[in-house]
Amino acid sequence: MPGQDLVVTTDALVEGVHFRSADAADLIARKALRVNISDLAAKGATPFAYTLAAVLPQRVGEDWLEGFALGLAADQAEFAVHLIGGDSTATPGPITLSITALGRVPAGRALLRSTARPGDVVYVSGTIGDGALGLAVLEGEFAGLDAVHGAYLKDRYWLPRPRPGLGQALIGHARAAIDISDGLVADLGHIAETSHVGAEIHTDRIPLSAAARVVLAGRPAAIERVLTGGDDYELLFTAPPEAEQSIEAASKRAGVAVTAIGHIRGGDGVQALDGDGRPLRLTASGYRHF
Amino acid sequence: MPGQDLVVTTDALVEGVHFRSADAADLIARKALRVNISDLAAKGATPFAYTLAAVLPQRVGEDWLEGFALGLAADQAEFAVHLIGGDSTATPGPITLSITALGRVPAGRALLRSTARPGDVVYVSGTIGDGALGLAVLEGEFAGLDAVHGAYLKDRYWLPRPRPGLGQALIGHARAAIDISDGLVADLGHIAETSHVGAEIHTDRIPLSAAARVVLAGRPAAIERVLTGGDDYELLFTAPPEAEQSIEAASKRAGVAVTAIGHIRGGDGVQALDGDGRPLRLTASGYRHF
Repeated sequence: MPGQDLVVTTDALVEGVHFRSADAADLIARKALRVNISDLAAKGATPFAYTLAAVLPQRVGEDWLEGFALGLAADQAEFAVHLIGGDSTATPGPITLSITALGRVPAGRALLRSTARPGDVVYVSGTIGDGALGLAVLEGEFAGLDAVHGAYLKDRYWLPRPRPGLGQALIGHARAAIDISDGLVADLGHIAETSHVGAEIHTDRIPLSAAARVVLAGRPAAIERVLTGGDDYELLFTAPPEAEQSIEAASKRAGVAVTAIGHIRGGDGVQALDGDGRPLRLTASGYRHF
Repeated sequence: MPGQDLVVTTDALVEGVHFRSADAADLIARKALRVNISDLAAKGATPFAYTLAAVLPQRVGEDWLEGFALGLAADQAEFAVHLIGGDSTATPGPITLSITALGRVPAGRALLRSTARPGDVVYVSGTIGDGALGLAVLEGEFAGLDAVHGAYLKDRYWLPRPRPGLGQALIGHARAAIDISDGLVADLGHIAETSHVGAEIHTDRIPLSAAARVVLAGRPAAIERVLTGGDDYELLFTAPPEAEQSIEAASKRAGVAVTAIGHIRGGDGVQALDGDGRPLRLTASGYRHF
């Protein structure tokens, strides 16, 4: 791959931790692949291949395996990646799927999380909070939410939309990038920490789906779920203010909306401000693996 | 990497399946890395990097993690590989380690398992059966075996010796290759099946360690464990008879002994013959993952 750097990422999904036992096998497969493609997207890399270690309990039957394989096949076609190796083994424990995805990026140009600077504008792609709210719906919360909005949110939990096209388009324009898996505040915290900066975001600027707006209208406290729930797999990135038009153009080329939600400052930590500019106290800053 | 192909392999290890809960954390780490390096060795590839997904139950403490990290560090130095990505996550189940190792091989020259031809000589590296016998010792079998030989076998179970140097040296000389993880007969079966050939091996030509010879002297039936037990992580390969001197030279360059144990023939399946040339009936042809 002359002129290209290899980018490699690994993410493991565990039944009962990252997906529910009741989730459909094809959606589990697609989510496992997509969270890895999202990691590559955050680096501006174009995915081309992956390996899979499928660690499966004996109770998993033919139907499940068939659904799983169909899910992988669908996303291999959708993202133009192929399976180049794998391992399947038995376990007395939960279904555990580990995928390593490989991508290519123009040499030396991969997007990093450690390069944000004070003054940068903070952007996100798509809408935030849908995955976390979808999980809550699946767990029986938000009783009374209409079926259409409920279905929308569940779908966003089951099937993330990684943004490799946007990641590639941001190369040379964005300064720092990450994908949102642990939660908006936690992942912005990762940018802040590795860049040795602080960040401020305005919760009233966070892009929300119609379904999320309906949930929040009835339960304003659910904003915390939006900020910290994770499972977004949208891109979170920073760019200098003068790059505004290039960012806009990249967003158009990729066909993915982006929204400015705050800025990078000196200091450290992430501060979320409400519509009146008052600091919001969050009880959790996002799901943390131990 | 101009002129080089990327080779990628993934292997997962599950506590209670591929290693014992009581095994030392540093040895578990090294084994997880080494079984992947062994896969690359079988392709003639030079390992250069790996990713790790560590799926760990809460009961795993600081001491275990420290030992695990030390084990990885030791083998990173020994095999000149570095960790380029990873994920760690919690599980309600057993320790599950998934490693993806990356290697390079001269373009188009990777060793394959599907290219054996009738008339080829079948070789193995090192000695066979030590890992499987070591596991048996750990499980309380072979009472009365002296401590020195017992310790030797246990060490071979805990710490495989992958053969990347030999794999590289065999490029252009061996015809087909695989590493022995499932067992000599099962892995030779993989070569036979994918190459559409059959194979015959002579059990009295299989290279044995002094410790394995001591075990077999008292319990001749343990030969089945040697043939089918797996956990060898030696190379099993074929080469045309006229390549005998090149194979000998490759073995010397790599500093790893190789032994001819049989040959490839037409037909299919693997036949093991005893010292009198009589077919041996095996009750198991090697550990099979489902």
